[in-house]
Amino acid sequence: MDKRHIAILGSTGSIGTQALDVVAQHPDLFEVELLTANNNSRLLIEQARRFKPNAVVICNEEKYVEVSEALDPLYIKVFTGIESVCDIVAGSGVDMVLTAMVGFSGLKPTVAAIRAGKAIALANKETLVAAGELIMSLSRECKAPIIPVDSEHSAIFQCLQGENADIEKLLLTGSGGPFRDFSQEEMSSVTREMALNHPRWKMGPKVTIDSASLMNKGLEVIEARWLFGVRPQDIEVVIHPQSIIHSMVQFTDGSVIAQMSNPDMRVPIQYALTYPRRTTLNNSRLDFPTLAQLTFEKPDTRKFPCLKLAYEALSCGGNATCILNGANEVAVKAFLEGRIRFTSIPSLIEETLAEGTFIKKPALEDIFSTDFEAKRIAAEKLRKFLI
Amino acid sequence: MDKRHIAILGSTGSIGTQALDVVAQHPDLFEVELLTANNNSRLLIEQARRFKPNAVVICNEEKYVEVSEALDPLYIKVFTGIESVCDIVAGSGVDMVLTAMVGFSGLKPTVAAIRAGKAIALANKETLVAAGELIMSLSRECKAPIIPVDSEHSAIFQCLQGENADIEKLLLTGSGGPFRDFSQEEMSSVTREMALNHPRWKMGPKVTIDSASLMNKGLEVIEARWLFGVRPQDIEVVIHPQSIIHSMVQFTDGSVIAQMSNPDMRVPIQYALTYPRRTTLNNSRLDFPTLAQLTFEKPDTRKFPCLKLAYEALSCGGNATCILNGANEVAVKAFLEGRIRFTSIPSLIEETLAEGTFIKKPALEDIFSTDFEAKRIAAEKLRKFLI
Repeated sequence: MDKRHIAILGSTGSIGTQALDVVAQHPDLFEVELLTANNNSRLLIEQARRFKPNAVVICNEEKYVEVSEALDPLYIKVFTGIESVCDIVAGSGVDMVLTAMVGFSGLKPTVAAIRAGKAIALANKETLVAAGELIMSLSRECKAPIIPVDSEHSAIFQCLQGENADIEKLLLTGSGGPFRDFSQEEMSSVTREMALNHPRWKMGPKVTIDSASLMNKGLEVIEARWLFGVRPQDIEVVIHPQSIIHSMVQFTDGSVIAQMSNPDMRVPIQYALTYPRRTTLNNSRLDFPTLAQLTFEKPDTRKFPCLKLAYEALSCGGNATCILNGANEVAVKAFLEGRIRFTSIPSLIEETLAEGTFIKKPALEDIFSTDFEAKRIAAEKLRKFLI
Repeated sequence: MDKRHIAILGSTGSIGTQALDVVAQHPDLFEVELLTANNNSRLLIEQARRFKPNAVVICNEEKYVEVSEALDPLYIKVFTGIESVCDIVAGSGVDMVLTAMVGFSGLKPTVAAIRAGKAIALANKETLVAAGELIMSLSRECKAPIIPVDSEHSAIFQCLQGENADIEKLLLTGSGGPFRDFSQEEMSSVTREMALNHPRWKMGPKVTIDSASLMNKGLEVIEARWLFGVRPQDIEVVIHPQSIIHSMVQFTDGSVIAQMSNPDMRVPIQYALTYPRRTTLNNSRLDFPTLAQLTFEKPDTRKFPCLKLAYEALSCGGNATCILNGANEVAVKAFLEGRIRFTSIPSLIEETLAEGTFIKKPALEDIFSTDFEAKRIAAEKLRKFLI
């Protein structure tokens, strides 16, 4: 294929750095057009020196001078602010945009890229959680394909290739996180360090906490509903502690197609970047005879209420999942700062959901105001959960 | 889709009866043109009364009158002999031929159907084992697609849909049969009844014995080599006692796609009959949380030498796999008749392989003479293994 010109939004994060590892393995396939980072100027400069993008954006304005001085001599354009990201991803030099920023802030540049008809390698969960219906309809309208990067959604996407059948059920697998075997009582004494220690995947702190609370799986259910156009009741979460099967699709003939690999995000990242082709990847292979057994369990929503809250918000529809997401961002941040207990995360979200203004058919502006309002309400409610 | 007009060769066997069960579930999708049986006139008559085919063939001439008298009043044409089968499958009324006869005798009508450009739902293992290279090249030449029906090859075929990538490895799973945990010593005292008691699949006696000796897996390796055009060393047999994963494909990015279902041959049969569509099937669904663990082992080729012999014959190329197959048919028949020990099956095959005339580039006539010679040699050698 022709070289694909890519923009990596959030290049210094966990997905971004692994994407650059994939790019480094295939200098013949990719040209890096844009790298963006929020704060990590040092790594951004290092990446820019190595991959020679056309431009970089450092979102934090305070770091602009540092980055600019380092990269100007290399003729790499340096910008700051989220608006620059939106402008560049829409430019003619970019074929595909990998949206690997964390949190709601990923929504704006993703919308800009879709409006410009770019292929989206979607790694920003919050985009579809906050505005799934809008985003998918915009994607169809602007003929901007959305290829999932999350390991679960990539697995489902891979399983659906070449199928023109009705989906009977999506089976979304998850490891169950570090607290799968904890008692209800033990859950209340979970510390930041315990929650950051995920048994299978190495990820950024926000996603790791979401994985520990199973909110991550809840957000994935919401994403899957929009990406694959299935009803919430046709998405089943299956706990699979070994994280070998990354998700499955059950068809109307009872046949189930599954995608597996060792836990390595470079597999789904590369699949999205090279889609519809596959190409070689220098990573470890599954060796079935030496594999431990594969096991499966039902998730315990009493112990992990976040998963139940996500299903409920999805059933409500409208902007409810956006409220859920905003409240969760506030709650996780507070937990990471040591200000609230792990078990207060779902309580804070539940109370915010009860108080947020429900909008049945939100426009994009409503999504932004909903996020703002949800975060404000959650920040107020936070006080009563302080340790 | 338009109604598909199908011929079911071997309709009274295990695959044939299950195919008719699929047909009965979808009267809107299929029209039965032809049913054939070797000996079981009673069931053939019953099936013909129910499914109203255009014609039936009872291969055993002694049963012709019985079948003819029963079906003439229903205006169903009745024929006898394998040549009739070849004529009818090539006729204009037939869209797809399900080849579900057991043994080498399936080769002739399959070739006739391919030459007539019919779609083949291939359930006769021996066709590709005896003459894989020839059959595949004939299939390309005559534009007669071959859709596998075996659960393993159907699984691989399903996993390959929508993929345009290089296959790194096929992972052919097998339950390991009833003697997986037997000691070498216990293997020599295996009886007919023990071998016929397969832990996972209900199949005809020939296939069941082949499953117990792992020759079935060996034949499947040979089939897979031709169906999917991969090198023998890129086909790995994985013992998976629960028979939930029916086979897998590993791609060059380390991603593995697997197909699963409860063990039920109607899933792959229907997939072949409706391909490239899927449609509903009223069968049991997998329930992952209640599944026992899934486990995997390497096959023990010291305890199951048939598997090793199959790989060796495949490496030899030419007509070696045809010799292997002929000798195996004789050996299994003798074992089923209580004339030789279970452990004599591989010995008889090995000796026949050593003595058969090797032909590097066999033509179709050579395949028939090879089968004849192999069976003659095996029948002679048999004497010294008699119990």
